[in-house]
Amino acid sequence: MEKRAELYRGKAKTVYTTDDPNLLILQFRNDTSAFDGERIDQLARKGMVNNKFNHFIMNKLEAAGIPTQVEALLSDEESLVKKLDMIPVECVVRNRAAGSLVRRLGVEEGKVFDKPTFEFFLKNDALHDPMVNEYHIEAFGWATAEQIAGMKQLTFKVNEVLKALFDDAGLVLVDFKLEFGLDADGNIVLGDEFSPDGCRLWDKETNEKMDKDRFRQGLGGVVEAYEAVANRLGVPL
Amino acid sequence: MEKRAELYRGKAKTVYTTDDPNLLILQFRNDTSAFDGERIDQLARKGMVNNKFNHFIMNKLEAAGIPTQVEALLSDEESLVKKLDMIPVECVVRNRAAGSLVRRLGVEEGKVFDKPTFEFFLKNDALHDPMVNEYHIEAFGWATAEQIAGMKQLTFKVNEVLKALFDDAGLVLVDFKLEFGLDADGNIVLGDEFSPDGCRLWDKETNEKMDKDRFRQGLGGVVEAYEAVANRLGVPL
Repeated sequence: MEKRAELYRGKAKTVYTTDDPNLLILQFRNDTSAFDGERIDQLARKGMVNNKFNHFIMNKLEAAGIPTQVEALLSDEESLVKKLDMIPVECVVRNRAAGSLVRRLGVEEGKVFDKPTFEFFLKNDALHDPMVNEYHIEAFGWATAEQIAGMKQLTFKVNEVLKALFDDAGLVLVDFKLEFGLDADGNIVLGDEFSPDGCRLWDKETNEKMDKDRFRQGLGGVVEAYEAVANRLGVPL
Repeated sequence: MEKRAELYRGKAKTVYTTDDPNLLILQFRNDTSAFDGERIDQLARKGMVNNKFNHFIMNKLEAAGIPTQVEALLSDEESLVKKLDMIPVECVVRNRAAGSLVRRLGVEEGKVFDKPTFEFFLKNDALHDPMVNEYHIEAFGWATAEQIAGMKQLTFKVNEVLKALFDDAGLVLVDFKLEFGLDADGNIVLGDEFSPDGCRLWDKETNEKMDKDRFRQGLGGVVEAYEAVANRLGVPL
């Protein structure tokens, strides 16, 4: 399968058409951005690490019964995926308080939640991805009530699967975001990458940050941390 | 019943203790504030109008089976109310898009929703009353799941009652916010005023704004609009 036209260039991935109208190629780039794209750097090896990390995680999720868009690993930085009609919201699950939640609600970083929390955010850079809820999503036609329930159920299931997977590797899954889309039959399918770019992972013993917060907070060793996580999980790099 | 100590001075009302530990006196002041208290003006007669308006509305809600804190109208600007243990969130129902929703989500003012939307906001001036959801409220212990469900159910019921009441008076109830508290037995009770300070009311024919947006937007005739609404409803001023 070969790349044809560039369909969309995101902050860290480029999406290409293929000869099959139902399949796309994702290219994971080394670009790393934060603060709504205000800060962008090139981090060597990041595209490769995230591509292989994502492929590994998606296989684990598929094995647990969660439908994902991933079809095949094509090269170090490329994956073949199903084309989806994307739902323009992000689903965020948190097991502990961190990041925007701490700033927004003035709460303590690290607080462990008895039950994971769930938030929807509208994907809209100009509006800085505002938090929304089920009522907004339905009222503005971004998704139906059934699709909303489906996204929530799948995101919580992903949390259960990955919390255990990371725990076995000595890591706390603090939070993560996912996006979903609809396949040709209207089924809700996970249409996002899962990598340390879109989640928070802390070392279970030391609470050391092993995710994109190293980049946001200028802690250095960003890709080294991603590789360490991949190694602990047994991702072949 | 006489006022004793000043218990709390809010932006538009002052709360006093009484000789009965279970009862408080609310004094509706002429102060009118907007933008997190950045702009404050004195508007003659507003305290009186809001006090009587609120008393009229609370009687309508009580008649519809909604528990409120209101006990009696004491004077032009004072009401006797039950003391409640307040839940620190605001409940907002919207029948049409306006105000912060329009800015936050970049949508068109006036859009009519098929079903009313519902939002929770944390009462916290320093954080600018951020939007929260059920998960946050439970995780941080601001209310229990049962109290959350109770507040939502009561707010939607208030919407049904008042939408019809205002419609009969030639007004569209665009949106409103309510706060709730717990009485001595732990029951959820409406613990807020209902006045044009905390809702949006548009003339059904002309869409003229008849609420606090006249103050926020510098349209003038603020109290005159409140009095016109009161007159249309039959509130004795």
